[in-house]
Amino acid sequence: MKSYVLALDLGGTNSVLGVVDPSGKIVCTDSFKTQAYPELDDYVEQCAVVAEGLYAQVGGKEQIEALGIGAPDVNYWEQTIENATNLPWKGIVPLASKLEARLGIRVRMTNDAKAAALGEMLYGAAKGMKDFIMLTLGTGVGSGIVVNGQLVYGKRSFAGELGHTSIRPENGRPCPCGRKGCLETYCSATGVAQTAREYLLSGNYPESTLHVLPIDAITSKDVYDAAMQGDRLGNEVFAFTGQLLGESCADFATFSDPEAFVFFGGLTKAGDLLMKPIVKTYEEMVFDNYKGTASFLLSQLKDAEAALLGAAALAWTDR
Amino acid sequence: MKSYVLALDLGGTNSVLGVVDPSGKIVCTDSFKTQAYPELDDYVEQCAVVAEGLYAQVGGKEQIEALGIGAPDVNYWEQTIENATNLPWKGIVPLASKLEARLGIRVRMTNDAKAAALGEMLYGAAKGMKDFIMLTLGTGVGSGIVVNGQLVYGKRSFAGELGHTSIRPENGRPCPCGRKGCLETYCSATGVAQTAREYLLSGNYPESTLHVLPIDAITSKDVYDAAMQGDRLGNEVFAFTGQLLGESCADFATFSDPEAFVFFGGLTKAGDLLMKPIVKTYEEMVFDNYKGTASFLLSQLKDAEAALLGAAALAWTDR
Repeated sequence: MKSYVLALDLGGTNSVLGVVDPSGKIVCTDSFKTQAYPELDDYVEQCAVVAEGLYAQVGGKEQIEALGIGAPDVNYWEQTIENATNLPWKGIVPLASKLEARLGIRVRMTNDAKAAALGEMLYGAAKGMKDFIMLTLGTGVGSGIVVNGQLVYGKRSFAGELGHTSIRPENGRPCPCGRKGCLETYCSATGVAQTAREYLLSGNYPESTLHVLPIDAITSKDVYDAAMQGDRLGNEVFAFTGQLLGESCADFATFSDPEAFVFFGGLTKAGDLLMKPIVKTYEEMVFDNYKGTASFLLSQLKDAEAALLGAAALAWTDR
Repeated sequence: MKSYVLALDLGGTNSVLGVVDPSGKIVCTDSFKTQAYPELDDYVEQCAVVAEGLYAQVGGKEQIEALGIGAPDVNYWEQTIENATNLPWKGIVPLASKLEARLGIRVRMTNDAKAAALGEMLYGAAKGMKDFIMLTLGTGVGSGIVVNGQLVYGKRSFAGELGHTSIRPENGRPCPCGRKGCLETYCSATGVAQTAREYLLSGNYPESTLHVLPIDAITSKDVYDAAMQGDRLGNEVFAFTGQLLGESCADFATFSDPEAFVFFGGLTKAGDLLMKPIVKTYEEMVFDNYKGTASFLLSQLKDAEAALLGAAALAWTDR
């Protein structure tokens, strides 16, 4: 085994490349704007140029074992990106094979939420675990499911879309995915802001400090700040959000009997405001067989490093 | 590889032992009453005696590769039966190791619903598939989930309890498991009879032929028979049951992106009455990414053979 892997966090805005050692130390990084390379071949060339610069800082390319990529809309089985809405390349994009040909090293690519779960398993809160579920609570709700030490991909590599399980199937919020009451419509940053708006308009919280903000501009951070100042509405929004997550985890447990649920993403900054109602509701609602057996953990990776470490974990483990 | 395996279908009433060849042909069987052996060691001895009789019919014990067991409440990782409510032995029962010591062949044991999924993968509707979900619609709702060609067991081997996902979390039927609105409370034989009773009491079906039966004695078979005679209530009960199963499958798809859902158990005798609303609701409700990609199949194993073939599949494949 060589000393390092190369990791690529391919986002809609930025592409970050880094060199990572087996312990999860990011040795050096460089980045560029993804949208500056609307032609795939130019993007591949730019990656190669940036990679050369990184190789030079760690003793040359011969120190590099492989490249791992975390990206949106990846078909893992095909090692392609398919119909990504936030990337410049349309249709089915054979990025991994192109990079492998250009760089001359092994390249493995997976979805960013799945890479995050691998990173957590190798370097973070799920170290040593073989069965856990990672939920990323950001603009949307992403997930990565690990069963028996392996990521769950499914037939077409679209497994792990737990943000699109319906938690309120009868009268829930409409989701752009076409369903009603999807977890994502409630338990994402967007969903939290929506809940706050509904509470504000209900007339039940005349005292809330959030009334001073333009209602359409309210963000989950505003709700969090208000809650931390003791605002009743803010606290109840997080209690409700946590309750729905706890209910959902009670369903997810029946699928894979996980050792832990690991939470990541902007919303988790709310800490106990969110985690306490999650655990309380889960333990109340879960099938008796599962009570008291799962841990509820926050990610142990730093926000800025998690995506690169996930991609690095893929490079180290996926042969 | 030897010519046959031994398979044990350990039920609360009967224990059936059989010899099965690699193609899934059951060569010979014998059975006895499980409850006649309240002492575990006596049960093991009885299995050994019956096995000897079967060996003699296929050319001796040296033709037998292994023993596979399908049983309730199995902890697969420990190869024990734990706190089974329908078996005579209390607490944690090391049946596999005792049989292995007594018989002198490799013994592997798993839960009956999981064995059924293995049987379907080796010999039935899921032949050659690596990602599918099997739902057993009987007195309860059981499940076996296969991901990447492997059964999903989870940390403590309690994975695959999809009958206890909540499909009506807000106002659903109470479930003995402690949850509300569990799939099993609606989509089991018991649930179908309960739905029929509710419909009868609603006053909306004065013409239903089911009114002639004592309401507490109505079974899912009565509902099926009525539906096949054109009874509106009977048809609507199956439409409702299928709708809830379709909704549930739309949730399950987000977990493991399966190639197929395979249905087994008494309720599936309803055929299209049940399957058509399942598929219709699934395709309406599922996340766009999954539309049109999963098959909905009926088990291809005969009722009387499925449990033995599942146990045989375990013996052939689990080394």
